Amino acid sequence: MTINYAARLARARARMEELGIGLLYLPQSANLQWLLGIERHVPGFTYTVYPGGWLNGAFIGLDKGPILTVPRMVADFDLGNIPGLDMRVLPDRGDPAELVRGVLKDFNLQGQKVAVEDRAWASFVVNFQRLLPGTQLALASEVFYPLRQIKDEQEIALMRKAGDIVDKTMAEALKKTKPGITELELLTEVEYQMTLHGSDAPSFPTALYIINPRYDKTGFATKGRVDRAIEPGTSVPFDFGAVYEGYCSDFGRTVWIGEPPAEYLRTHELVMASQAAGIAAMRSGKITAAQLDAVARQVIDDAGYGAGFRHRLGHGIGMDVHEPAFLNTGDDTLLTNGMCFTIEPSIILDDRWMVRVEDVVVVRDTGGEPLSHYSKQPLVVA
Amino acid sequence: MTINYAARLARARARMEELGIGLLYLPQSANLQWLLGIERHVPGFTYTVYPGGWLNGAFIGLDKGPILTVPRMVADFDLGNIPGLDMRVLPDRGDPAELVRGVLKDFNLQGQKVAVEDRAWASFVVNFQRLLPGTQLALASEVFYPLRQIKDEQEIALMRKAGDIVDKTMAEALKKTKPGITELELLTEVEYQMTLHGSDAPSFPTALYIINPRYDKTGFATKGRVDRAIEPGTSVPFDFGAVYEGYCSDFGRTVWIGEPPAEYLRTHELVMASQAAGIAAMRSGKITAAQLDAVARQVIDDAGYGAGFRHRLGHGIGMDVHEPAFLNTGDDTLLTNGMCFTIEPSIILDDRWMVRVEDVVVVRDTGGEPLSHYSKQPLVVA
Repeated sequence: MTINYAARLARARARMEELGIGLLYLPQSANLQWLLGIERHVPGFTYTVYPGGWLNGAFIGLDKGPILTVPRMVADFDLGNIPGLDMRVLPDRGDPAELVRGVLKDFNLQGQKVAVEDRAWASFVVNFQRLLPGTQLALASEVFYPLRQIKDEQEIALMRKAGDIVDKTMAEALKKTKPGITELELLTEVEYQMTLHGSDAPSFPTALYIINPRYDKTGFATKGRVDRAIEPGTSVPFDFGAVYEGYCSDFGRTVWIGEPPAEYLRTHELVMASQAAGIAAMRSGKITAAQLDAVARQVIDDAGYGAGFRHRLGHGIGMDVHEPAFLNTGDDTLLTNGMCFTIEPSIILDDRWMVRVEDVVVVRDTGGEPLSHYSKQPLVVA
Repeated sequence: MTINYAARLARARARMEELGIGLLYLPQSANLQWLLGIERHVPGFTYTVYPGGWLNGAFIGLDKGPILTVPRMVADFDLGNIPGLDMRVLPDRGDPAELVRGVLKDFNLQGQKVAVEDRAWASFVVNFQRLLPGTQLALASEVFYPLRQIKDEQEIALMRKAGDIVDKTMAEALKKTKPGITELELLTEVEYQMTLHGSDAPSFPTALYIINPRYDKTGFATKGRVDRAIEPGTSVPFDFGAVYEGYCSDFGRTVWIGEPPAEYLRTHELVMASQAAGIAAMRSGKITAAQLDAVARQVIDDAGYGAGFRHRLGHGIGMDVHEPAFLNTGDDTLLTNGMCFTIEPSIILDDRWMVRVEDVVVVRDTGGEPLSHYSKQPLVVA
C-alpha cells in the first residue's frame, strides 16, 4: 500500500511548531515507522550492543532532515540501504558524540524544545544533554498521539489485515488444542501461524492465561513458555496479536478443555454479552472512554461477577498495541470516527477459570465495527 | 542456585561511592537481575502502555532501598509479589510524579550523581529531571560493567547450562534441516527446542543468514521469519542463543544443503581453524581483545579470504548477550580469568555462501574453555 509519508511529515511538523518543538529524535519505533516507513527491529530479550549505539535514530527538524545516524553494524546488517535518506554511518571506531554534534549543527534550535521518543534510551538523553546542555526536552508522544489516534481508511484496511491474520491463526490453533498438548506447543503454534499468515512479529508476547486449581499459583503464566500438558477441566484463554505492515491486532478467545461446568458457560455468555454491549455503544461523538468501560462492565456487575473483571475494558491500538485513550474510569476522551480500541472484558474466578474475549473495534457513526470475526460461541474441546 | 545478592549489592554500593553516585534507577534489566534477582520481561515488538508506566523500576541508594515503583497492572499481572521488597504500587488513576517524589525524599542526594540504566526510557529521564532539576546524571553501565565483566564459577556454571541448551537444540534442529524445509519452520523449531530445554527466552532474535544466488538480495534475512523453502546448494548459518537463569549463550553452526563444493569445505575448514586459533590464544593476562581478534583474523587473511570476514571476532557475554569488551581493533582490554566471549569468525562470499561458527568461551590461564561443544565438522544434509 502506498502511504503518503510527505503528508504525514507535514502534519508532524505543523504539530511541532504548535508545541515549540524545533527537533525530533526518533530511534526505531512506531512513531518513526508512521512518519517515514522505516521498520522496527524485533527486540532482543537481552541487550545487543555496538559501541556508540546510543546515537542510533533519526533527527527531524522543522525544515531540515530527516538525518539518520547509525552504527556501521546496524547499517550493514540490519537497516540496509534506504533510498533517498540522508544516512550518516558511525564507523566501528568512530566518535558518536562527534557525529551527532555535526548533525545538530544543521538544525536551528534557538529557544525551541527537542522532543525525544518516549522509549528512546536514557543513554541517548544523557549523551545529548552533554552536547546541548540546558536544552528543554519534551516527549515525542506529545507530537504523535493526536496524529495517530484517528486512523484513516487506509490504516483501517491494514488493521483489518492484521485482524484476518488472528482469525486464521485462531482456527489453526483450535485444531491443535486438545487434552495433553503443552502450553509451549500451543504458544509455538500460534506464533508460527501468525508469521505464516503474514505477520511481521507478534504485537506483544503471546500468552495463555491458564487457571487450573491443580496448578501452583505464582501468578499468571504471562510469559507462558511452559512445558506443561493441559488437562481436562481447564480454561485456555488465548491472547495474541499480529502486526501487518506495522499495524497491530490484539485478539482473544477462550477454549474449555473437557466437559464445561454450567457456570462456565454462564460466565462465557456474560463476557460475550458485555463485549457486545460495548461494541454497540461505540458511536462516534456519543460516548467517552470511561462511559464505554462502564457500559460493558455493567453487564458483568449486574450478574454478580463484577469482582472478576479486574482490568480496563480496553485500550487504543494502531501501530502500537497499546495507545491512548484507555477504556477506563477517569479517561474522558470522547470517542470519534476512526479511533480503534480493543474490547476485552473478562471474568477471572481464582482457582477455577478465566473467560476472556478480545477484538479490535473501530468507532463508527452507528456503533463499533470489529476488525476480527472469529466465533463468539463457547469453544469446547473434549 | 543460591546467589549471594547481599554481596552483589555491597559491591555495587562500593562502586557507587567511588563514582560519586548517590542513587541508582534500574527498570527490569540485566543489571537489576544481577543485583536483586528480579527477572526481565519478554519485550514486545510494539509498545504495551500503562498510564504512569514511566516510573516502573527500582531505586537504590547508598544506604536505603531498593524501593520498587510499579504500575498496578504490572504489579498484579507481571511481577507478582516479591517477598522482602519495598514495592510501591501506582494505582490505576494515581499520579506517578507524586509517587516518585515521595520515594526520592528517602534518599539524600546532596551533591551526588544519579545513575540511570542505559536503556531506561527517555520518559523516565524527562519526568525525573522535572522532579529534581539540575541533578547530574550518569549511566548505570559505569557502575555495573566492571562488576559483571569477570564471571565467578557459579556464574560460569549457569552459562555452561545455557551452552548445554544450544548444543541440544542444534542436534534437534539438524534433524529437521533438509531440502524444502522453510526458514520459518527451522526458526520455529530452534526457539521451541531452546524453551523445551529450559531457556527463559532467546538471548537475541534467532536468525538464519541464508545466502543463495537465486534469492533476491535486500540484505540478510536477520529477521528471518521467511516462509521460503530452502533449496539444495544453500548454506544455512544458524545463529541463536538461550538464557538460563538470566545467563546467555550465543551459538552458531553452518549446515550445507546438497552436495558441497570443494571451496565451501575449504572455507569451512578455515573458519574452524580461525576459531581454534582464537580459543587457544585466550590465556589470562597474555593477550588483549584487539590482539585476539588479530590472531583469529590472520588465519583467514593468510588464506586470501580476509575480505569475507566482515565483523568483529566476538563480544563479551554474560547476563546480556553483548557486553564489553569487544574483540575488535581498538579495544585494548587485557583478557583475564573468568571473562567470557563469543568467538565467531565467518567468511561471507556474496552471492555464494556464508560459513560461520560461534561458541561462548571463558578466558583461563592455559587458553579458552568453550561452554558449548557441538561438532565442528562440516554439517551436510543431502
